[in-house]
Amino acid sequence: MNVKDIGTALAQLREQAPLVVNITNYVVMNNSANALLAIGASPIMAHSREEMAEMMAFAGALVINIGTLDRTWIERMTFAVEQANDTGKVVVLDPVGCGATSLRTNSARHLAALAERLIIRGNSSEIIALAGQTSQGKGVDSQDASDAALDAAKQLVEQYQAQVVISGATDYIVNAEGIYTLNNGHPMMTRVTGTGCSLSAITGAFAAIGETSGLAAAAVMSVAGEIAAEQANGPGSLQAALLDALYNLDAETLSKRLKLSQLS
Amino acid sequence: MNVKDIGTALAQLREQAPLVVNITNYVVMNNSANALLAIGASPIMAHSREEMAEMMAFAGALVINIGTLDRTWIERMTFAVEQANDTGKVVVLDPVGCGATSLRTNSARHLAALAERLIIRGNSSEIIALAGQTSQGKGVDSQDASDAALDAAKQLVEQYQAQVVISGATDYIVNAEGIYTLNNGHPMMTRVTGTGCSLSAITGAFAAIGETSGLAAAAVMSVAGEIAAEQANGPGSLQAALLDALYNLDAETLSKRLKLSQLS
Amino acid sequence: MNVKDIGTALAQLREQAPLVVNITNYVVMNNSANALLAIGASPIMAHSREEMAEMMAFAGALVINIGTLDRTWIERMTFAVEQANDTGKVVVLDPVGCGATSLRTNSARHLAALAERLIIRGNSSEIIALAGQTSQGKGVDSQDASDAALDAAKQLVEQYQAQVVISGATDYIVNAEGIYTLNNGHPMMTRVTGTGCSLSAITGAFAAIGETSGLAAAAVMSVAGEIAAEQANGPGSLQAALLDALYNLDAETLSKRLKLSQLS
Repeated sequence: MNVKDIGTALAQLREQAPLVVNITNYVVMNNSANALLAIGASPIMAHSREEMAEMMAFAGALVINIGTLDRTWIERMTFAVEQANDTGKVVVLDPVGCGATSLRTNSARHLAALAERLIIRGNSSEIIALAGQTSQGKGVDSQDASDAALDAAKQLVEQYQAQVVISGATDYIVNAEGIYTLNNGHPMMTRVTGTGCSLSAITGAFAAIGETSGLAAAAVMSVAGEIAAEQANGPGSLQAALLDALYNLDAETLSKRLKLSQLS
Repeated sequence: MNVKDIGTALAQLREQAPLVVNITNYVVMNNSANALLAIGASPIMAHSREEMAEMMAFAGALVINIGTLDRTWIERMTFAVEQANDTGKVVVLDPVGCGATSLRTNSARHLAALAERLIIRGNSSEIIALAGQTSQGKGVDSQDASDAALDAAKQLVEQYQAQVVISGATDYIVNAEGIYTLNNGHPMMTRVTGTGCSLSAITGAFAAIGETSGLAAAAVMSVAGEIAAEQANGPGSLQAALLDALYNLDAETLSKRLKLSQLS
Repeated sequence: MNVKDIGTALAQLREQAPLVVNITNYVVMNNSANALLAIGASPIMAHSREEMAEMMAFAGALVINIGTLDRTWIERMTFAVEQANDTGKVVVLDPVGCGATSLRTNSARHLAALAERLIIRGNSSEIIALAGQTSQGKGVDSQDASDAALDAAKQLVEQYQAQVVISGATDYIVNAEGIYTLNNGHPMMTRVTGTGCSLSAITGAFAAIGETSGLAAAAVMSVAGEIAAEQANGPGSLQAALLDALYNLDAETLSKRLKLSQLS
């Protein structure tokens, strides 16, 4: 996948406006829905067992985000992943805070093992923890990528037959075919809650139209974030500018700005 | 009700600052509270059986929104509508995603049948589904109005003795006396989550001061949305500009912009 | 504590980026997380019994906010306060809507009595109700301070060995040593939901680095709100500008703007 393919995928997403079902945390439900609307997808935020099977039947993908987790939500997430499996849909797993508590680590692993078509999107400490190393989270918005994260991602690719996206100053898109790196984005994105979660949601939208590597979503989000940061005076205006940038992003801007490399 | 009456109702709302109890979905609780504050009302977001009777006793209206629905929330909504009935308060029902799943369709009908003083506010596909036609929702932010929706609204008016507001490119305000149309607003409003839900909340605020047709709320919201869209660079800045426009809206601007007609 | 101390505390907060665990209401979870990120702290929004003990072990403080309360949340809050007690952490209690219903009043008192190191942050009607007077809340965003509130705060200081912050046109910081007043802020802050809740969250961040009077947080928030209101066209733009102002605030601006007095 090259820059031109990403532009094409974005155009397709806007044309198809895929339905993405999200079971996400209380904090970022609004951000996630707005990010999906801004990029051109159709969000559904739902969680009830009573309607999940029906929803997954007509939805394009499922996004699971384990922030604000508890036993009830784990059951809901488990059931939703089962419905996604039954209907052959991709599951995007955002293991928020994985490694910070055993509840989160265990739940993330349980869901990763359950999903048949899986994309994992997290920051480096979450990816490391999910792969089995211990790492006490510094909040859920920390950002640094490292060799350890890359090794962890490779392990997850094999263990779960997953695609993995590590968010950070450099984003890594890791799968069985190789590794891409993205060097867009802006540090101020880590001072707003929900930018990673929004990326996970958009990853679901691209997966729904068949782009299951996570690359297009990471490209779109990091370029939009970079544009937004240039216009923002701080994290408050960044949040609004990010949605504007997602909405206005075109293939030409993507192509001009994107710093994409293939690592292996 | 004419344009001048709407301006008068807005002034009264700001003077009385009515308390509006909202049982709404996780995604838009923040938007709904902010829309009510911006227009000059006093929001209470609450759901617990333990305090709902007390709250409805001093509240001016109840707004029920069935996004992010589950069994527990249906029980809470049912109990709240009963309290609204007991205290003679208007219930505004926002049947989010009605038609997309049977859980939502059945719950919306159950709540509509229960409420004694009812305003229904939805988009055309939700109104059609609530009235008994089937329509698989395209997310919960779709927008198109049609003859089918108008027929459905007329049926709901009779069936539930309700007032009905259909949101779309043209808004329809339908009740036993006739039909008004509004041609304000902007398509970009559908690329932000919660604009419809905010309209439902504001409908509750006007109902609390005795304007129970839904017209004043739809007028205020669509004009504010139109102003916001003119100032916005995309859906992110639209969201902020919408609250600013609601806050700054005056009778003169309303009168100058409002495209209100009586259809029958 | 003087203006210079507040500037020093702010610099320390940004250097240490303390972890603050928040059990807050659905409406303002996003605001609270963003306010903490903007000021330089690390938010965790969590509630589950399964991970709370682990979290409080490495967290710096606990913030409890009783908006959108129910029986389940009261149990979660109770358990979290017990963990904070066991690990010697400060609890910030935001008694949203205290006085509006007996559920809220009783729960706020129960939690206040339980917490061993307590800061209470509310508006005057909430503080009055918590201290035992009755006051039917005008929504949860009302604002006026009074002698009654000051008397109530003094009582709470003694009764719970607490520090108390009363938010309003004038903020009062009340503790066993005396009373400070702050005359910054802007009335438009009351037309946005979550500004008080964000102050409570930031109070937790300062408590986590040892500033347990609530003064530094109130100073930072009211000055940032004042700056934001000067730039805003209404409550929507205020919300974004507030996060920007928190992010950009420096000791010099604080010192130039802060209207701090010692009342007794």
